[in-house]
This record gives sequence, structure tokens and C-alpha cells, in this order.
Amino acid sequence: MDIRIIKNPSPSEKPDENALGFGLTYTDHMFIMDYNRSVGWHNARIVPFGPLEIHPAAVVLHYGAEVFEGLKAYRAADGTVRLFRPLDNIRRMNDSAERLCLPVIDEDDAMQALVEFVRLEQDFVPHKSGTSLYIRPFMIATEANLGLHGINEASFIIIASPSGSYYKEGISPVSIMIETEDVRAVKGGTGYAKCGGNYAASTRAGERAEKLGFSQVLWLDGVERKYIEEVGSMNVMFKIAGKVITPDLIGTVLPGITRRSILEMLRDEGYEVEERRISVEEIINALENGTLEEAFGCGTAAVVSPMGKLVFNGREYTINNNEIGPLTAHLYDTLTGIQWGRLEDTKGWVLTI
Amino acid sequence: MDIRIIKNPSPSEKPDENALGFGLTYTDHMFIMDYNRSVGWHNARIVPFGPLEIHPAAVVLHYGAEVFEGLKAYRAADGTVRLFRPLDNIRRMNDSAERLCLPVIDEDDAMQALVEFVRLEQDFVPHKSGTSLYIRPFMIATEANLGLHGINEASFIIIASPSGSYYKEGISPVSIMIETEDVRAVKGGTGYAKCGGNYAASTRAGERAEKLGFSQVLWLDGVERKYIEEVGSMNVMFKIAGKVITPDLIGTVLPGITRRSILEMLRDEGYEVEERRISVEEIINALENGTLEEAFGCGTAAVVSPMGKLVFNGREYTINNNEIGPLTAHLYDTLTGIQWGRLEDTKGWVLTI
Repeated sequence: MDIRIIKNPSPSEKPDENALGFGLTYTDHMFIMDYNRSVGWHNARIVPFGPLEIHPAAVVLHYGAEVFEGLKAYRAADGTVRLFRPLDNIRRMNDSAERLCLPVIDEDDAMQALVEFVRLEQDFVPHKSGTSLYIRPFMIATEANLGLHGINEASFIIIASPSGSYYKEGISPVSIMIETEDVRAVKGGTGYAKCGGNYAASTRAGERAEKLGFSQVLWLDGVERKYIEEVGSMNVMFKIAGKVITPDLIGTVLPGITRRSILEMLRDEGYEVEERRISVEEIINALENGTLEEAFGCGTAAVVSPMGKLVFNGREYTINNNEIGPLTAHLYDTLTGIQWGRLEDTKGWVLTI
Repeated sequence: MDIRIIKNPSPSEKPDENALGFGLTYTDHMFIMDYNRSVGWHNARIVPFGPLEIHPAAVVLHYGAEVFEGLKAYRAADGTVRLFRPLDNIRRMNDSAERLCLPVIDEDDAMQALVEFVRLEQDFVPHKSGTSLYIRPFMIATEANLGLHGINEASFIIIASPSGSYYKEGISPVSIMIETEDVRAVKGGTGYAKCGGNYAASTRAGERAEKLGFSQVLWLDGVERKYIEEVGSMNVMFKIAGKVITPDLIGTVLPGITRRSILEMLRDEGYEVEERRISVEEIINALENGTLEEAFGCGTAAVVSPMGKLVFNGREYTINNNEIGPLTAHLYDTLTGIQWGRLEDTKGWVLTI
């Protein structure tokens, strides 16, 4: 695939690495490639970062035809820039696209786009501990068509934002509320796809929880309202009596790449791991009989996010004395160690740019 | 509210009324108003129709923060232009916005925007029987924010498209397949909101049905997979043994304005009407024992769409000999009669511009 490059004539100053937030500034360029049904994907280009011109009747603005991915470029101590399992992101984006009837992209082309883009923007990958360049590939249906009949035109875009450490004050446990009103996903829906609609459905509960002093909500299944699915926009894991348990992928849960990596690490280290349905009742029982040792969310942004308090129907439970547990800390250290190059990558997870 | 008007310097030719499709051409202008959390809604303007400049990290492109409405401007025989229950659309848009944490709009301001916009574009309302100006108000979150924390910036936009008759060859029954795999909505989700995510979740089943020769799918509930919710993107009604039955509004079904109008008309005319759960089993039983007299979808685009064939798990059932039923025809004639001014508007449903 030929990627045309039009360099930004006015490159920006790199942002202050001590003041990086999340998604506040963007790099100088963006990758764009267009699709239409007759010619397929075409016109791959890297151009100066700037506003997109979108037809007011574009399908993406009305019918939610949008999927995305999130990954990071890490600066290792030796100065090299590294990606973590990027092909998994590309594959998941294609899975999401299929659910929404958006066009899939050849994996090699998408990888080439990602790598060439990151290579061009590599000076934006910050050096300070815990910082990274957050990369957001996304696909939108651009066709002007209010008729809701197939998707004939789309764009695949990659943007990137230098981002600060998720844990500015050090990793610490959060308080989580079990959501009993709103539902994020249901079997037969789009829960496993990384698409806009799932997040639109989740916003209200997240905001309500925040106002009540919680960091996020724990989502229950939409059918029986008793099985745990995700925490906020992360996968969730529980360590109960030595075993690690996480909801299985039955179509309602995002197949997280951090989730998959942690499961592989745990199995390698000899932990007993169960991917299966977990009811709230089981968690509450384990909290009450003292067998719930650790609980954490996991995802690209936080890596792991330990749960310190869990509130269900007004009753508050404390997990591991509201401290990060030893397994959670070990997983965090190991994964971030591999990502930032402090530990050896024995699994072939890291792609050096 | 002050609405600044910047006239399009190159007004377009009006499209050929004999060749109007749906959503193919747009009028010369669009209404736009912006929101940010500190000043609220501001900068109401009608400007030449054209592409929107959207930040690549705008929330609408990633997290599905978008709601919309659909209504028509009708040209009556006396030449006047009329809207049908437009305030209901504005109120529903605000309900949708609340579910997605988008800002609501003062009803009077939104109505003023709608009326001034339609007045300016009234020459685009076509004259030919069955044609109309389709109006699409929509709201999108415009803020550049990948962090998924509240919505601080949005735009409210109105565009319009001269549209041909929904029934070019005359109203005729369609074949519908009961969808048993994909799910459109679940209680606790966004089913009652007119938001992008619902449509993104529906596209795949609609496309599959079309490939199999069906017009659309009949959606079942996401929990028990046995209660009927909608047909395609319309509400659905069944006439069984003289009574009209439609799914009740329990959060998963769009509160359609055509639905509401039909229910009011039926009650006025003395029909027995039930808003309640209806199982597939009940429908199949009624088909088998001959008490299912008529079935139809209803919505702004089609007004009513009679169901002639229904397929469930491979078995095909015919409704009313695959002909439009007398009640369906009566409802169609009455509603379109009121909308196009051929019948008296005794309910105060019509707003003449």
C-alpha cells in the first residue's frame, strides 16, 4: 500500500511532559484512508492534523456507524518506541466493523498505516515514566445517506495524543458501585464490539456514579441482571480463594487485549484461571466469607485498576483493606515492565518501531 | 432567540419532483446552534448547507453521542406548508438527549429554529402527491475529548431533504422475518431514545433479512426473546379479533409519534386498544386460528406499512391474504389526509407555517 505523506508545514512544540493529561493535545499529523463500495479502500495518506469535513447527513452522525481502537506507543529506556500487540487491535477493529456492517481492512494495510504513522510521529512519544502516546484508530461511515441502507462510504483514521501517566499519584484502589438500573449491553447486541453506541449507553450511569463519589460502575448483564460483565469501560477480574475468575466472552463483554494478556500470564505462572459467568451473589458471598482476595479492572489506559470498595444496594464492602493486592501489583509491574522494556518480552508481544 | 441568517449565495435548482428519492438532495441551508457547558446554547444561525468541520477527536465520532429526530413538511392543496405534531419531536429529542447526557434545548427555542428554518426553505417542499420535505433535526457532541467524561460541547443542527413518496407503486404489504439472533434494545439500555447506537445495532439484521428477500425484521425483546418490540425502525401494531394491540413503552421501544397518533385515533373511533407485551407465540396462535386480521408497522416515513407475510424459524405465515387490511388503509388515509390537509385537523396536530 502506498501512503502519501503531506508534512505539516507548521510543526507544533512538543507538549510539557510534566503537564500531560489524557487526550488534550494531538500530534502534527493524522492518517486517513477512504472506502467506497466500488473501489474498496483507497487514498491512504498522512496529512496535517486538523478538522474533518463531514457531510451533515453522514451516516456516522445519525446512525452510530463508528468503531474504534485504543493503544499506546511506549518509550523504552533505550529510547526506542514500542507498540503492544497492535495486530490484536487491528483484528478487533475488524470484528467490530463486521458487527456494524462497516468495511473491514486488510490487516497488513492497517498495520502498515499504524507503523508508518507512529514512525512519523515518534518524537511525540514522551519520555517521562508512565507517559505514552495514546493512539486512536477509528472508522466512520461518511456517506450522506439518511436512508439507513447499507454502508457504501467510510474513512479509517488514526490520530494520536501524548498522554500522562494514568496513575499520577501512584496506583491506588478505587470505589465502585454496582449498577442496577442502566444496562450497557445484551447478548445479540453490540457489547463485544468497540463501537460508539456501547459508550453512549454507558455515560449516564458513569456520571451518576461519579456524582455519588464512585470512580465507576460495575455492569451487570442485561438479561438476568445478576452476572458481572465489565467495570466502567474495563474488563474485570476477581481473585477468590487463590483462583482468578473473569466473565467469559459471550458477546456482551469487550475481548480486551489487556484481559487476554493477563490471562496468558496467569496461566503461564500456574494460576488457576476461570472464564465463566460470575454472579453478584458469588462476589458478595466471597466478600462476606473473606475469600475475595483481590479485584481489579483491566484495560489499555489503566493496565490494571484495583477495586478497593464495592457498593451494592447501599451496602459497602471493602476489598483487601482498600489496598492494592499483591497479584494486582505483580500484574501491573509485569505488564508495564514488558511495555516499557524494563522486562524481557518472552511472548513476542512487543513491536519495536 | 435571535437567529442570524446567512443566505446561500448560489441557491440550487429545485429537484425534479418526479425523481425524488429519500435523502438524496438537501435544501440550500441548514440551522446550527452550539452549546458549551459555561454559556449554554448560543450562536443560533441559518447558514448555507455544506460540510461540517468536526475535530477528529470529537465525542460524536467515537462514543456515539448523537440523537436525532425525523419529521416532514407537507404541501397542502391550498399551497400552505404544514408540520405534524412538531413539538412532540422536540420533546422526544430532549428525552433522547437526557439518556445520552447530551444537553436539552428549550422547547420554544427549538420550535422557533424549526419553524424559521422551514419557512426559509418552504419552496423546497414539493407539490406532487405523497412527496414531502423530510426534516432531520439532530444533536451531536462536538468536543474533542477521548476521555469519556461528561459532554461539554455540542451542536444542534437541522437539515432537510425533498423526498419522494414512500409508496411509489402504491401502498402494498411487505414480508417480514422474525429476528432470533441480533437484539436491538434491552431494558436499561437506549431503546426508547432516538440515538445512533440503536440503529448501529440494527443494521446487520436488516441487511441479512434484505438478502433473504425480506423487507425488514421483527425485533424481539433482549431478555426473554419472545416479546415483540418493533418492526425495522417502526412501531408495530396487530389487529387480533377486533382489538388493536401494540407493545407498551417499557424503555425498549421508541415512543413513536405516528404510534401515539394512531392510538388516539383508534380510541376516538371506539376501537379496543391494548398497549401491552405481545409474545411471538400469541401472534403465531392468532395466525393459525385465523384471528390475526391485520398487522402493520407505523412511523413518520411510511405512515403505515402493512405486513403481508411473516416468517418465523423458517415457517411462512400470510396475513390478510397478503393484502392491505381495511383498518390499515383507513388509518393511512386518515393520517395522510390530516397531514396533507385533505381532512380536517380536529386534534390540533397540524402546525401551518
